[in-house]
Amino acid sequence: MFKVNDNFTKLPASYLFSQVAARISAFLAENPGVEVIRMGIGDVTRPVCQAAIDAMHKAVDDEASAATFYGYGPEQGYAFLRDKIAEYDYNRRGIKVSADEIFISDGAKSDTGNIGDILAIADKVAVTDPVYPVYVDTNVMAGRAGHLLPDGHWSNIVYLPCTADNDFVPSLPSERPDVIYLCYPNNPTGTVLTREQLKVWVDYARANGCLILFDSAYEAYVTQPDVPRSIYEIEGASDVAIEFRSYSKTAGFTGLRLGYTVVPKSLYGVDSEGGKVSLHALWLRRQSTKFNGASYVIQRAAEALYTPDGIRQVRETVDYYMRNSRLLLEGVRSAGLKAFGGENSPYVWIKTPEGMDSWQFFDRMLSDLHIAGTPGVGFGPAGEGYFRLTAFNTYENTLRAVERIKEWQL
Amino acid sequence: MFKVNDNFTKLPASYLFSQVAARISAFLAENPGVEVIRMGIGDVTRPVCQAAIDAMHKAVDDEASAATFYGYGPEQGYAFLRDKIAEYDYNRRGIKVSADEIFISDGAKSDTGNIGDILAIADKVAVTDPVYPVYVDTNVMAGRAGHLLPDGHWSNIVYLPCTADNDFVPSLPSERPDVIYLCYPNNPTGTVLTREQLKVWVDYARANGCLILFDSAYEAYVTQPDVPRSIYEIEGASDVAIEFRSYSKTAGFTGLRLGYTVVPKSLYGVDSEGGKVSLHALWLRRQSTKFNGASYVIQRAAEALYTPDGIRQVRETVDYYMRNSRLLLEGVRSAGLKAFGGENSPYVWIKTPEGMDSWQFFDRMLSDLHIAGTPGVGFGPAGEGYFRLTAFNTYENTLRAVERIKEWQL
Repeated sequence: MFKVNDNFTKLPASYLFSQVAARISAFLAENPGVEVIRMGIGDVTRPVCQAAIDAMHKAVDDEASAATFYGYGPEQGYAFLRDKIAEYDYNRRGIKVSADEIFISDGAKSDTGNIGDILAIADKVAVTDPVYPVYVDTNVMAGRAGHLLPDGHWSNIVYLPCTADNDFVPSLPSERPDVIYLCYPNNPTGTVLTREQLKVWVDYARANGCLILFDSAYEAYVTQPDVPRSIYEIEGASDVAIEFRSYSKTAGFTGLRLGYTVVPKSLYGVDSEGGKVSLHALWLRRQSTKFNGASYVIQRAAEALYTPDGIRQVRETVDYYMRNSRLLLEGVRSAGLKAFGGENSPYVWIKTPEGMDSWQFFDRMLSDLHIAGTPGVGFGPAGEGYFRLTAFNTYENTLRAVERIKEWQL
Repeated sequence: MFKVNDNFTKLPASYLFSQVAARISAFLAENPGVEVIRMGIGDVTRPVCQAAIDAMHKAVDDEASAATFYGYGPEQGYAFLRDKIAEYDYNRRGIKVSADEIFISDGAKSDTGNIGDILAIADKVAVTDPVYPVYVDTNVMAGRAGHLLPDGHWSNIVYLPCTADNDFVPSLPSERPDVIYLCYPNNPTGTVLTREQLKVWVDYARANGCLILFDSAYEAYVTQPDVPRSIYEIEGASDVAIEFRSYSKTAGFTGLRLGYTVVPKSLYGVDSEGGKVSLHALWLRRQSTKFNGASYVIQRAAEALYTPDGIRQVRETVDYYMRNSRLLLEGVRSAGLKAFGGENSPYVWIKTPEGMDSWQFFDRMLSDLHIAGTPGVGFGPAGEGYFRLTAFNTYENTLRAVERIKEWQL
């Protein structure tokens, strides 16, 4: 009989957000008519900006006529978009990234998931704790994680705890990993690293032959000047880091699907005989073989985000969510709760009161305030005792949520 | 130093279509002003049908307003599309497939590439020869292929030759494989298996515990009633087969990007301890973890293909290409060449004249007739001595090509 990939069977069956959804459903079944404000899943609510809408209509019309029809596009993405990304997201900010180092895809989740294809199974992986579950689960699937321990950690993964105790700044690991996932501004904690703090990791990676997989899906939410929006702002990073970006949270493309990944041409790993191998060449081969390019229509939508109208409209959307974020942070704090993030990120990370765990806090907030968030423990053991609220709801709902939180007798 | 996936470094650096493009460029540089008719790459030329265009305009407008905005969709695809596929592509044709066995993706290339994620590395793979290169290359990347032999075969892959000698009907292998890739109507040969001939493979897979990965991306081109459009027309196939489909060749979605994969709930493999594992559950987990659903706008476009207008318009496009295909087949044969396929497929597979190999034929056709096709050897060693022409060009260009071919003094 043919055999399946055993590693999949090690993964616990249920998933955080399905558990959240199930508890909300159960609550609503017992309390019909109650309106729950959902601040759990990180999906956006603002529509796609007009510049992108107009560009899509035009691109759809291109597909309607043989003279302007676009068929198979380049697997790496159209130059019209890669050129804009290089110019606006990097070069104009003083960062060296060239258009041919950029790979357009259907989203950062695909890329952060698929990137493991080009790495050795023997590579030791490090993640922050708590962490976006995709980094861990995809390494479990690939066979890099070992086995699940009773405390929720995987035996072969190096964890970098990020809690209030260390101001959410991960310490360098005692055991050297090969691959380090970093996501800043961070999902789920909403916290950031300053340029100086990120430099520590770039220097460590350079000194120890590590690869950094840097997820900057939330870079548009950075407000502080000393917080980098790209890892390539740090000197030497292009020798050690791949950067993942997404249009989901910046431009509301969660339903359209588009993101991109930067694989610098100066980035090399080694093969089993110690020979240098270009990661850019491997990723190009991976994408050319297992991917056929992102949708032409959606690439045109992204291109329009770099027009003056597009830039302004995206800024307005980000500002809208950031107003929610500040409101939430302030409201939670004025209720006497400790809270983090929210200043350079659409996520507010709440410390649950002494003696109350993440899921108890979830249940209390749902039944007392009719607000649903995400239990921190769902993102990893060090997330226990924390709770995530997102700023991606409407301003009106955020206001209502904050009013309830402020008067909460917890 | 972190290590890369060594298997990638085994892949020969160049790729068939880039070599084809390079030879055309060189020819044009030496012969400026000459117009080459391109019948090489399998990309379509007809525009997307009006029903799909209208649906996309409407879907784009949905994304423009908060009230109708679609954010993250289900990773498996929207029910509005999966229901239509189950009904029109299967149930109305008397085939049992349920909507929750269907997974929408950004294309069959992604799915045929990624499916290996859920299978054991130790599984032995069989492919027809010649073959769509993605099946082989993705297994090389995963470490299932062994090493490249001087004759162009991989040491650990079972090859099933399909040539004029066996009427392009692969014989059952002498060595039992775990996984068998079949693509019918076939790319690149354009040949088909009858229901009876495909049943041999389903029965073999059932008797020997094999998994069949059935690529039916060209099913819309089937004209003969005894040729199956789905492997699930064969009794028992849902216990042994996964089916891949694409809107690229049926509805011209090569630039839009959409396909789907059927993983029946009755399909099981075994884990390393011999326990039964559902492939549907594994693929759902894979897609939920490494994919975030296909674009909402494009899923709406595909939904429209199942309206009366959509059905008629897709039929017209397929008929258009099939007229080209018959024309090509007839033209090539009237030039005294042996040719296959073309009757249930947009591909015509030419036997090169005695003493002329695939690339020599390519060069002669390019320089004599200014027509570019694809050398058969690019699809595998058994493709040597064959040559592929596609029917995806315009009718006018196909006519011009056929006129040149008919008068060819080869």
